[in-house]
Amino acid sequence: MKKQELFENIKKKQSFLCIGLDTDIKKIPLHLLQEADPIFTFNKAIIDATAKYCVAYKPNLAFYESLGISGWQALEDTVKYIRSKYPEIFIIADAKRGDIGNTSKLYAKTFFESMDFDAVTVAPYMGEDSITPFLSYKDKWVILLALTSNKGADDFQYFTESNTRLFEQVLKKSQNWADKSAMMYVVGATRAEMLTDIRKIVPDHFLLVPGVGAQGGSLKEVAEYGMNEKCGLLVNSSRAIIFADSTESFAETAAVKAKEVQSEMSELLKNKGII
Amino acid sequence: MKKQELFENIKKKQSFLCIGLDTDIKKIPLHLLQEADPIFTFNKAIIDATAKYCVAYKPNLAFYESLGISGWQALEDTVKYIRSKYPEIFIIADAKRGDIGNTSKLYAKTFFESMDFDAVTVAPYMGEDSITPFLSYKDKWVILLALTSNKGADDFQYFTESNTRLFEQVLKKSQNWADKSAMMYVVGATRAEMLTDIRKIVPDHFLLVPGVGAQGGSLKEVAEYGMNEKCGLLVNSSRAIIFADSTESFAETAAVKAKEVQSEMSELLKNKGII
Repeated sequence: MKKQELFENIKKKQSFLCIGLDTDIKKIPLHLLQEADPIFTFNKAIIDATAKYCVAYKPNLAFYESLGISGWQALEDTVKYIRSKYPEIFIIADAKRGDIGNTSKLYAKTFFESMDFDAVTVAPYMGEDSITPFLSYKDKWVILLALTSNKGADDFQYFTESNTRLFEQVLKKSQNWADKSAMMYVVGATRAEMLTDIRKIVPDHFLLVPGVGAQGGSLKEVAEYGMNEKCGLLVNSSRAIIFADSTESFAETAAVKAKEVQSEMSELLKNKGII
Repeated sequence: MKKQELFENIKKKQSFLCIGLDTDIKKIPLHLLQEADPIFTFNKAIIDATAKYCVAYKPNLAFYESLGISGWQALEDTVKYIRSKYPEIFIIADAKRGDIGNTSKLYAKTFFESMDFDAVTVAPYMGEDSITPFLSYKDKWVILLALTSNKGADDFQYFTESNTRLFEQVLKKSQNWADKSAMMYVVGATRAEMLTDIRKIVPDHFLLVPGVGAQGGSLKEVAEYGMNEKCGLLVNSSRAIIFADSTESFAETAAVKAKEVQSEMSELLKNKGII
């Protein structure tokens, strides 16, 4: 998907919501366990209920891999389903991969050829040649970890050389590796106060912001410090939407929760004069 | 596997060779493509031919994932095969995972419960809570990226605060997170000259050293700068062994190549007085 197309979808849906499909077999409603593929059945219901309120879905690979072959099948089916029924939706493989060039090339093949994801999250530790193989696909994106939402972000991401913190160095260096239409950055909502510093380095890039909802980040603060003239934000919420209700009406409740977030986003987009 | 057990295997086999099962469907002998599962058939033949010369196997997840469900099946079958026929072999999932705690917990479940790997490679960027979920499994290991073998290692791993480079900071901090019997570090053979500095920080830890062979690292230098009194090294070779020959005698050739490396390793262990 092209950057402009993503922006048009945001305006049209008045939403920059990404819904994380962290589909945990232990958390889905019990009645679904009788289905042939409980994970895909859950995802399908969530997607049909929430697609009008979001612009992106983000399956987290760990949840699928932990189920082995059946999990992998559910992941493939989920991506195919979104692609066929909601072609305007941006699909992110939250995989946090990153390896030497010949290996990253195969990860790129997995997510961009074997499956039709739009983007994949990548860890920056191994540097440029671990990232460039993902960039050879037209209209596909790398979403590079910059400043993550977890406590462990403090361990290395603030490591500082000559007044530049590591996450800033990641932003500075990596923006030379790819066009702005092929690279986004992960910035945790729990670090919203850092968005001002981050926007000084990458004013135009899209940021993928996890940590709103269960992890405690504030959507209002994220928009205040992080939104640019073309929105420039995809804010992710997972558990707070998909696991809001564990009864048979889980999908309807997820729609209510997604709509609540979308309404708040609509206001924020209006305040900024984007819509 | 316990650390002492790994050391005993090294002495018994006079080898600290890890063979990387980077099984690329495009590089395996053509006649195998007629098999029901070409990847597993290839691995099985390589394993039977080389098991006596190595102490570890390291499937690289990217090669399996890129084939989708059939690749995942081949991976599971490969781990089961090694575990049942060569129970003394240490099996590493070269996955380079790392995510927030609840996600890393699922990756740990994948590699240590759904499959019976001994160790998994993890990227350090997200810090302590991305790593600790892997450490709750008895006799299982995390192998943390420290200084990698690729060119991109220069981009961030040498970033320096107060005379400490990032890879040194990773070694310093992370060694407080786990016992020496649960953590190893990746140090590329192409950076052998850095092993002296690395051994000052982690004198007793095992190091997993990729980059000998196709990537150009020298085994002699790795042993000279990196070997400790209990060996403390697992040196990986992938392509130079498993793809040395693309004819029907590929497995025999792999055995010859593995034996060559094992012989050199035997000399290095003798020089050090370990065997």
